[in-house]
Amino acid sequence: MSDHSKKSLTVLGLGDMGSALVRSWLAVGYAVTVWNRSARPAPEGAVVASTVADAVAANSLVVVCLLDDASVRATLDGIDLTGRDIVNLTTSTPAEARTLSDWIAVRGGRFLDGGIMAVPSMIGVADSGGYVFYSGSAELHETHAEALAVPAGVTYVGADAGFAALYDIALLSAMWGMFAGATHAFALIRAEDISPVEFAPLLVGYQQAMAGYAYGTAAQLASGDYAEGVESNLAMMVTTNGTLLRTAAEQGVSPELLTPFMALMERRVAEGGGKESTTGVVDLLRR
Amino acid sequence: MSDHSKKSLTVLGLGDMGSALVRSWLAVGYAVTVWNRSARPAPEGAVVASTVADAVAANSLVVVCLLDDASVRATLDGIDLTGRDIVNLTTSTPAEARTLSDWIAVRGGRFLDGGIMAVPSMIGVADSGGYVFYSGSAELHETHAEALAVPAGVTYVGADAGFAALYDIALLSAMWGMFAGATHAFALIRAEDISPVEFAPLLVGYQQAMAGYAYGTAAQLASGDYAEGVESNLAMMVTTNGTLLRTAAEQGVSPELLTPFMALMERRVAEGGGKESTTGVVDLLRR
Repeated sequence: MSDHSKKSLTVLGLGDMGSALVRSWLAVGYAVTVWNRSARPAPEGAVVASTVADAVAANSLVVVCLLDDASVRATLDGIDLTGRDIVNLTTSTPAEARTLSDWIAVRGGRFLDGGIMAVPSMIGVADSGGYVFYSGSAELHETHAEALAVPAGVTYVGADAGFAALYDIALLSAMWGMFAGATHAFALIRAEDISPVEFAPLLVGYQQAMAGYAYGTAAQLASGDYAEGVESNLAMMVTTNGTLLRTAAEQGVSPELLTPFMALMERRVAEGGGKESTTGVVDLLRR
Repeated sequence: MSDHSKKSLTVLGLGDMGSALVRSWLAVGYAVTVWNRSARPAPEGAVVASTVADAVAANSLVVVCLLDDASVRATLDGIDLTGRDIVNLTTSTPAEARTLSDWIAVRGGRFLDGGIMAVPSMIGVADSGGYVFYSGSAELHETHAEALAVPAGVTYVGADAGFAALYDIALLSAMWGMFAGATHAFALIRAEDISPVEFAPLLVGYQQAMAGYAYGTAAQLASGDYAEGVESNLAMMVTTNGTLLRTAAEQGVSPELLTPFMALMERRVAEGGGKESTTGVVDLLRR
């Protein structure tokens, strides 16, 4: 491959994220061929292909950033993928990514799935903190390491095409929980003469300090001993639940974002886990 | 007051936290008089009072760290509190702290309530990160600033005796949400050949990075404009909910810790908040 061919790629999809990706590659000198299902202005400097087939034929590296898994299949169906390296940055589930990987392989392409842990404004920004989980073909990942490193940091999590999506969704799920907790906290202070802007640094600092609790959970899941090194145990936490619920009632706040976790804590204590940490709740969630 | 009298105090309650507090003051040279409802070994060097009345009479500064609000009232009922400075570190709700403050005032004492953001092993440890929210009598807080700074950092949050408990419970509630999210994340990876110990740093790092989202929520609550500066809006988040739920189903994990927040997000979108951040959910929680 010539040096020129190394510095080019195709991007399918010009939504907010796809456009941000294209701009990041253009900014460092890549030749970028783009295609979008509907007419949409392409970032300046990109070469617009009129068909998917033309766009895919233009470069061996084809980055796909579409609406959902079904759109990816609909877009690539019937296209010659022989020798193509498909990097899928479309949000999908682990099973969808695995199925898509097989689907691409049958059509002669190599496959790498990605889960983007960033918003579009972080793409191509040095030290933004954003990164992309990749999993699937290690060869594809190595061949295109330089190009893949352009939009954001790269975290390769294994040959299983489903792992990038799994890590992505696991972290987003954890974030939803954190946001739910913060939402309840803001609701509690809302009835009082307390500035949310002055309260926020205390909330952020506490969540950042306590995030490390997950290291203990991980160690306990690995060892199987859920009472290992526990200082504030589940029985004590369940007692605290009462104070949390009474406070919510006093402040006129629905406890609905907290009660499911409290119910699982109580169930684990009832099953004999009072001296444990919250780790046993992980097992209660599994069906 | 003599220098000697400044360096002494009474502690009621020798549970894990009360004992840790006593040890922290003894370690820096305070004379500490203690009392506990049941016979329990006192930290070495403490003076054990045989009655609550004796313990309260021994020092102007009386720190109370008992089981719950009812225990505090039961313990101090009938005791002469004239000129006493009562610092209550018993876990309570904001309303309980306010009522107790009035109850102490009627009996001639000044009152400061505290919410301890630390576990006993962090008490008296320099740079442990632990601290205590205090609210209530500013005069009491100033008079005893040196003593109060011994066990952990001090954050005074106002004259309202209920605020320390409110801040305490708000942060604990937020932490419960964060733990719930992390629990779901661990459950998702549990079926796979993924080490929880290797996964943990990614989870912790992401939660720490995304905790700052609360600054945006606070700014929006203050301005009343919930669409201000929004990049990833509620309509997009609701679309992502579908991927989170399908992933949970694929991995055999109950979505019960996520669904209440998702339901509120959807309700807000249905009410026209699709271009907003999650801030509107704060209002939905308020009754």
